[in-house]
Amino acid sequence: MNMKNEAITARDVDFAQWYTDVCKKAELMDYSSVKGFIDYLPYGYAIWEEIQNYLNKRFKEKGSENVYLPMVIPSSLFNKEKEHVEGFAPETLVATYGGGKKLDDPLIIRPTSEILFSDMYKRLVSSYRDLPKRYNQWCSVVRWEKTTRPFLRGAEFLWQEGHCLFETEEEAEKNVKDMLQVYDDCGKDLLAIPFVKGKKTEHEKFAGALATYSIEALMHDGKALQSGTSHNLGQGFAKAFGISFQGRNNALEVPWQTSWGVSTRLLGAIIMVHGDDNGLVLPPLVAPIQVVIIPIRQQEEGVLEACKGIKDTLEKEGIRVKLDDDNSKTPGWKFSEYEMKGVPLRIEVGPRDLKEGQVVLAKRVTGEKKTGKIEEVESMIPSLLQEIHNDMYKKALDFLNSHISDVDNLDDLKKALDKGGYARMAFCGSAECELKIKEITNGGTTRCIYKESAPEGSVCPVCGKPNTMVVYFAKAY
Amino acid sequence: MNMKNEAITARDVDFAQWYTDVCKKAELMDYSSVKGFIDYLPYGYAIWEEIQNYLNKRFKEKGSENVYLPMVIPSSLFNKEKEHVEGFAPETLVATYGGGKKLDDPLIIRPTSEILFSDMYKRLVSSYRDLPKRYNQWCSVVRWEKTTRPFLRGAEFLWQEGHCLFETEEEAEKNVKDMLQVYDDCGKDLLAIPFVKGKKTEHEKFAGALATYSIEALMHDGKALQSGTSHNLGQGFAKAFGISFQGRNNALEVPWQTSWGVSTRLLGAIIMVHGDDNGLVLPPLVAPIQVVIIPIRQQEEGVLEACKGIKDTLEKEGIRVKLDDDNSKTPGWKFSEYEMKGVPLRIEVGPRDLKEGQVVLAKRVTGEKKTGKIEEVESMIPSLLQEIHNDMYKKALDFLNSHISDVDNLDDLKKALDKGGYARMAFCGSAECELKIKEITNGGTTRCIYKESAPEGSVCPVCGKPNTMVVYFAKAY
Repeated sequence: MNMKNEAITARDVDFAQWYTDVCKKAELMDYSSVKGFIDYLPYGYAIWEEIQNYLNKRFKEKGSENVYLPMVIPSSLFNKEKEHVEGFAPETLVATYGGGKKLDDPLIIRPTSEILFSDMYKRLVSSYRDLPKRYNQWCSVVRWEKTTRPFLRGAEFLWQEGHCLFETEEEAEKNVKDMLQVYDDCGKDLLAIPFVKGKKTEHEKFAGALATYSIEALMHDGKALQSGTSHNLGQGFAKAFGISFQGRNNALEVPWQTSWGVSTRLLGAIIMVHGDDNGLVLPPLVAPIQVVIIPIRQQEEGVLEACKGIKDTLEKEGIRVKLDDDNSKTPGWKFSEYEMKGVPLRIEVGPRDLKEGQVVLAKRVTGEKKTGKIEEVESMIPSLLQEIHNDMYKKALDFLNSHISDVDNLDDLKKALDKGGYARMAFCGSAECELKIKEITNGGTTRCIYKESAPEGSVCPVCGKPNTMVVYFAKAY
Repeated sequence: MNMKNEAITARDVDFAQWYTDVCKKAELMDYSSVKGFIDYLPYGYAIWEEIQNYLNKRFKEKGSENVYLPMVIPSSLFNKEKEHVEGFAPETLVATYGGGKKLDDPLIIRPTSEILFSDMYKRLVSSYRDLPKRYNQWCSVVRWEKTTRPFLRGAEFLWQEGHCLFETEEEAEKNVKDMLQVYDDCGKDLLAIPFVKGKKTEHEKFAGALATYSIEALMHDGKALQSGTSHNLGQGFAKAFGISFQGRNNALEVPWQTSWGVSTRLLGAIIMVHGDDNGLVLPPLVAPIQVVIIPIRQQEEGVLEACKGIKDTLEKEGIRVKLDDDNSKTPGWKFSEYEMKGVPLRIEVGPRDLKEGQVVLAKRVTGEKKTGKIEEVESMIPSLLQEIHNDMYKKALDFLNSHISDVDNLDDLKKALDKGGYARMAFCGSAECELKIKEITNGGTTRCIYKESAPEGSVCPVCGKPNTMVVYFAKAY
């Protein structure tokens, strides 16, 4: 448990090892004894709770209500929507015994809940007066993945899944885009992460959806991370599950459905967008500890008292603050410790500064240090935290913008993707060409569509047919 | 969906049917297509969220931190603590296939997580400096029950489970009692439910615990409902899972463990303690709608404007308020509707009262109506809601107190339990006698211990051996 103050692998030496080091040493998670599953430890889980708070508020503004549906789906029900089952069946965990007896209808641990929501809506909806339905669920889902990485890909992860039902196609399409915007705002306002966002190609869309939209973050190693999706499910599930309603004109109609979700993958995005060689760097709004106060020469008169005074003042402001007065550790050790944990702001309180009526303020993201008057701490800190948020967003946005290039042939695409970042290129839009590009670029995939049109007369660099779209390509997690 | 305004079964006609009617017609839940599982609908789930908010705050005050552990337990791990596995194995749901392949080590869907917490603590704890650990988890658990009832007994339910680890037995015992007190406070302060509380007998304690304490609520039909438990797990799990730590004197020691939990059963308690023949009666602090405003003759000038004014005012006060201005429904229909949904306070706004500058305020719990000046609504409502909470608590407490009797023989015990409520009786404390009493009284069980001593010289009415304790007996859910 006391390993965390050792240095971690540098990002440029081994990014994957750096990532694992940060996850473990910042105590975000622990590997569980259940193969492929992780324990979400308090420091990691608290970040997720802040994301939940933000999204719950935003969802509510959009008229969403929280519900909870069963964690298992009977096989007989699971098989009703053909495309969907083909997409998910290979990675399911299946329960076959209950109460010591073999189950007649095996139960699939939910990998996602379109099926259960559709089945419920069939019971709850019979008239246009029952619409729209905008339900959301916070839960965990299980996908039997072969290779797993903390927060990025795991046998079980935490997420929210919104499932809505509307009278008209227009309302559904609006909802899909509204929720994508909520996720984009969550990045900008809460996580200090800029996204590239747009529609997925046919090949990359969700199993059973009419259209999928996603937000994609760019990690420090130049790889993209799909960070949230919003699906227009059309009428496919509704038809498969027999959902219908009496419309305004008394005719029986089929509703339009959407689903949208983000998961604990966002923790992975936070780590890999903001982290540095000293460890985690947390956006202030989700940091479990926003400010750490570290006394210098704490045995000297007045030091601890001053620390406690600042702590009380900040707590009254609603700031999450920790005073580390453990005298068995040196201030230097503590500096590294809270840098590893990504605490956005450190306040150093020592006898010399106190004489001047001031403290030292150190920003985690830039390493910048400045002094501030003690009596102004209360008024300074909230705006300083906002400033740190802005610093972090700007840094991430600059990185993103400097890693987008426009290319028009496979050679340049390959070079750009090898270098890291997004390459925008026009192509025909077919799944075949997409798969060939993946092979040629050694793993480059379409992340989302930049433009649903292409320069006139331009042809696909793979098949030579007319281009139909310009797409963000990248290597991705 | 429009059945909810029909009358429900009266409590005294068929209490079980009344309960089911309320669950369905107040739209707290729906029966899912997955046998034994329910859908928690927005109105029911929102009550659970208020309980979560209250408890999260109280847990945090006690130093608890939230975590999330895997939803499955490998069989090999599950079998390590003998008593525990014997208690839970018969009601487990077991996954045997993952990703299309048979699993070597089948996975048990968690019925409770003592095992996973113990296994994690073994990794996280090595020194007294790592203690105490006070982790809590909000999740769902699965128990393969044969007969299920909404919120009371189901294949899957939502709960929180706290799992703590301490250096000393004293700290563990204190934690067990502290958390029981938090649950008791939750009843008194949030749910307006008084509990009987105390230690369980050996026979009724948790599988694998040294001692179990519980809070027991009394339902309107005279049956008890175990509503929360707090367990002193001693060192049993720690020894079975090899958890040890270097103590202050450098010797290797074994820690002391506790666990404690409440579940969505509390929703069942709310329904059956407070509900009446008109439906649900919700304690104001957990009510998703605390105040409903119903316009009378809403087409007349000024009525809807006044309603909206009151709504805005109350919302600014942080009160959860709904204005129902659907003009396709009569006020009378709406009165029944929100009575069924248990909304604590109704405000009627009609042209006649408006002329007098007043509105009508109707309390759900007592049916009492009074008028209030419009300009005083803002200042009146918060205290009126508190008054309603107090009314509800007092009513439930009076019911509880009038349903506790003291008996000293089996005949009187049987009579008391047939009548409903608790009977306090001294007995020897053995599991054998407890089982015989259950048979004789047609289902009476020990709920918790009232006194860990008995009148001198008194003997057990079953076996004739000396009494050791006075116990609350009741028929229970």
